Amino acid sequence: MSPYVRKAIAALAIKGLDFEQKDQMPFVDDPEYRKISPLGKIPALEDGDAVMCDSTIVCEYLDEAYPENPVYPKNPADRAKARWLEEYGDDKVGPNASGLFFHKFVMPMIFKQPTDEAAIAKIIDQDLPPILDYLESQVPEEGFFFGDFSMADLSLVSGFFNAEYAGYTVDAERWSKTAAFIERVRTYPVMTKILGDEAKLIALMG
Amino acid sequence: MSPYVRKAIAALAIKGLDFEQKDQMPFVDDPEYRKISPLGKIPALEDGDAVMCDSTIVCEYLDEAYPENPVYPKNPADRAKARWLEEYGDDKVGPNASGLFFHKFVMPMIFKQPTDEAAIAKIIDQDLPPILDYLESQVPEEGFFFGDFSMADLSLVSGFFNAEYAGYTVDAERWSKTAAFIERVRTYPVMTKILGDEAKLIALMG
Repeated sequence: MSPYVRKAIAALAIKGLDFEQKDQMPFVDDPEYRKISPLGKIPALEDGDAVMCDSTIVCEYLDEAYPENPVYPKNPADRAKARWLEEYGDDKVGPNASGLFFHKFVMPMIFKQPTDEAAIAKIIDQDLPPILDYLESQVPEEGFFFGDFSMADLSLVSGFFNAEYAGYTVDAERWSKTAAFIERVRTYPVMTKILGDEAKLIALMG
Repeated sequence: MSPYVRKAIAALAIKGLDFEQKDQMPFVDDPEYRKISPLGKIPALEDGDAVMCDSTIVCEYLDEAYPENPVYPKNPADRAKARWLEEYGDDKVGPNASGLFFHKFVMPMIFKQPTDEAAIAKIIDQDLPPILDYLESQVPEEGFFFGDFSMADLSLVSGFFNAEYAGYTVDAERWSKTAAFIERVRTYPVMTKILGDEAKLIALMG
């Protein structure tokens, strides 16, 4: 249920690659895991001798090592744009969505602690609106950014699926193109399956 | 004199590509520039219709659009490692080095303001040592990471050239491999030229 792990699972699924998933809490002091992911972030990938962390690095590696069913566009200018969108999703959408998820889901559901309503209000009222304004100026009217579904499409909005677990949905009147784009990503077959698996996990927690 | 702009200039120089450089202050409220670089970061690149920001995205684009004289390794596992090193340099070394540069160089030399000695001490005593310990565990004993000089080599230590402008040098007794590696990057011919041009600029400011 990490917006970043979800990217790696989607890339593996699109490419039809088998994999074994090992659960790992992020940011913990686990010396073995820190050898693979020095900052403690998830996901990481081991593929034979190749060991790496960072969702974008994992997905780019998978696309280069297993080129069938590409998850990035081909043309260099499109690739540059895809990398920007992916970075924007990872660095701007992801942390805010993860904040909502942490305060409204992890704290009460897992740690049985009260939620920090001020932190939530700040994310919803101050941090997310300019990000959503930018997304609204970028997302395509229909379909995906580069024709086929790519990691740019998922990365840009992956965090919103976590925000939804925290009870937040993008206002479809204010950001109609973005809300419709999120729905297209959600109903892309690979994503329906992945998000369905997450829903089952969440039902077990509730 | 940005650790990130330096990366783009190095990639262009290694590839022997002509370019026109336009000065741009980062993080300013310049609506025209924000269209190209939404977060106001430098560098950005315009190449015909292709417009992009972020030093890593610029360098990866240049390597894909102009493959001669590559600036990244070929093999997918090496590329994953190169991306990690580049990201670590950009996100961990760069901001600390830029902090030193800002407090000890930009503030007194350009804004004629006193330096924030506490902020400087924190960077030097607390923030940089664990980063340097990590670099010391990673840098090669000799030569560069992937045989030929690549963007990973430069990105990992680009910030230290800025730290030097602020009077900081890596302790060669405590982090001997890293200090020697920085010297190898500094004396790589393309870098000697670029850093020499920067030195001329700094002399003009002093």
